[in-house]
Amino acid sequence: MDDFSQLTTPAFLVDRTVVARNCERMRTKAAASDVIFRPHVKTHKTVEVARMQHGGGIGPVTVSTLAEAEQLAEGGFRDMTYAVPIAPEKLARAAGLAKRLDRLNILIDSRAVLQAIESSGFTFDVFLKVDCGYHRAGVDPESPESAQLAADMMRSASVRFRGLLTHAGHSYNVRTIDEILAVAAQETDSLTRFRERIGAPALLRSIGSTPTASLVTNFDDADEIRPGNYVFYDAFQATIGSCRPEDVAVSVLTTVIGAYPERDALMIDAGALALSKDLGAGSGYGLVCDLDLNPLPMTIETLSQEHGKIRTQHPVPVGTQLRILPNHSCLTAAMFDMYHVIEGGRVVGEWRPVRGW
Amino acid sequence: MDDFSQLTTPAFLVDRTVVARNCERMRTKAAASDVIFRPHVKTHKTVEVARMQHGGGIGPVTVSTLAEAEQLAEGGFRDMTYAVPIAPEKLARAAGLAKRLDRLNILIDSRAVLQAIESSGFTFDVFLKVDCGYHRAGVDPESPESAQLAADMMRSASVRFRGLLTHAGHSYNVRTIDEILAVAAQETDSLTRFRERIGAPALLRSIGSTPTASLVTNFDDADEIRPGNYVFYDAFQATIGSCRPEDVAVSVLTTVIGAYPERDALMIDAGALALSKDLGAGSGYGLVCDLDLNPLPMTIETLSQEHGKIRTQHPVPVGTQLRILPNHSCLTAAMFDMYHVIEGGRVVGEWRPVRGW
Repeated sequence: MDDFSQLTTPAFLVDRTVVARNCERMRTKAAASDVIFRPHVKTHKTVEVARMQHGGGIGPVTVSTLAEAEQLAEGGFRDMTYAVPIAPEKLARAAGLAKRLDRLNILIDSRAVLQAIESSGFTFDVFLKVDCGYHRAGVDPESPESAQLAADMMRSASVRFRGLLTHAGHSYNVRTIDEILAVAAQETDSLTRFRERIGAPALLRSIGSTPTASLVTNFDDADEIRPGNYVFYDAFQATIGSCRPEDVAVSVLTTVIGAYPERDALMIDAGALALSKDLGAGSGYGLVCDLDLNPLPMTIETLSQEHGKIRTQHPVPVGTQLRILPNHSCLTAAMFDMYHVIEGGRVVGEWRPVRGW
Repeated sequence: MDDFSQLTTPAFLVDRTVVARNCERMRTKAAASDVIFRPHVKTHKTVEVARMQHGGGIGPVTVSTLAEAEQLAEGGFRDMTYAVPIAPEKLARAAGLAKRLDRLNILIDSRAVLQAIESSGFTFDVFLKVDCGYHRAGVDPESPESAQLAADMMRSASVRFRGLLTHAGHSYNVRTIDEILAVAAQETDSLTRFRERIGAPALLRSIGSTPTASLVTNFDDADEIRPGNYVFYDAFQATIGSCRPEDVAVSVLTTVIGAYPERDALMIDAGALALSKDLGAGSGYGLVCDLDLNPLPMTIETLSQEHGKIRTQHPVPVGTQLRILPNHSCLTAAMFDMYHVIEGGRVVGEWRPVRGW
């Protein structure tokens, strides 16, 4: 049995062997389709895993905060896309970063941001964010206003219009592989059709969501892909079928701090500040996966700040260490200042993710 | 209008005037009841607010992690209760800390922990954790096993048995002031009755939950109180009636980064990593409270990692700063490495909370 008794719990464990395998699989598939591979770093927020995403080297990346971008710039990365619509107040900071890089792409999905860029005095590389059906950010690819905005971007002297970008986040809301593949088709089609409509064949079509990228066999209808969660995967991704349970590379190590057989309950020292309150597919706040106890009917039923309550009839002694697969590895990883890197059941290192914005 | 345009969003704002008022009100009520005032620091995790809880000085405190305890020890605090059942692996660290303090109380709610303490070679000050109806941690005050454990604690040479401790966390699950007051009565009664049953009148009765502590008029049936959330309060506490909306001392400053009137939506740059995914009373992930726009029907409907989606018909321009009252200030505060301290609508300082365990 793996022995992590030297670690203070709760602790975040990352299995480097599994991360390397996940990274290699996605990188190989991208290379076979001859697309630009610009993986997202928001899940792990480390230079170490960003390098693993590129087979040990440096390559294009996608970031969710300027803090991530600045840290990766320190780590030698030169080509980034900041894939959240930018707040106008952040343009000066983005310009400062862009000057240090070969390329910093930012997103536009409104005339207001185009105008703010035009007022900034700096020429940015930009993508137009398109809504492919998720209805979070992005312009409606069917509307006349979107075509007009694209036309204005092509004419603007303040931007270099590089491409169209979309994120099929609604792939997280479906539950079968066929449904995910239907969303994947929608993701690429929305960009291809909009590009035809505005008559700009040189614009890159950039797509990316882990469920769609994991399940399609190739990326022939796109020019660039940006998956991120695939490095770690999580209990939710395993539930919807975008990975196998053994592809989940991360877990939260916790200790049983209370046993209450009279009410079928265990208490663990991983609460909301360790696991996050993401309910994933809705069947508890993570999946108890300790190998020696598996399979057990154990449900992480409620979380308070530093307590997690497990419903189970299994008698587990106080002091026992358990591992929990997080529902949503991006949010759970962000609860920790440090990851314990494991390999073959042993701790082999530490990684420190970027925090804040 | 308050101007926070110099701040990078998302940012966590703490109104020091409101914190001071909340602290003073609870401290005065505790003093009037002549109970030991041992406020919890888990909500703010700073030496600065711990001092405000004691009117600017040093006093007894309650902590939720050993990391908080160690930081407060650095700040001069000498008397602490670690109010989460302790994992046996943490006893050595707790003993090291106890040697530096006048008092470190730890919790016992199982024979296993008593035995672990007896094996540790260190004599700890302890409270027996009693379940007053919340059914999270704690022993059943009606069971023979609980009385037996208490008797064994009284006889043990390895512990100094200081008192009985309970937390009426189920006060968070009720919705009217009368129901909260009923839980408050249950909280104190459970300890008084258990203490009589085991015939140990010298044991302290320690209670604490912000809803009950905020609404009772006095603490005559307890010996010690440990509220914590009251320093900041939050949208949830205002909803259930334990505070007024103007008592909420904290907010998340965010910027509108997208406006989609065609789908009645705004996008803000406060996502799950800024607000936490605590749903509070269930009507959205926080309360938009910007004064110049209030009252607006605005619901923070979904959060992804760095995006928050607001459902509203109100046209709000991209670039507008909004403030959001968090549903659960403890979890939201913990998402930030730094708090911006404000007073009279201006930023006057920074506080850095303890992180990790």
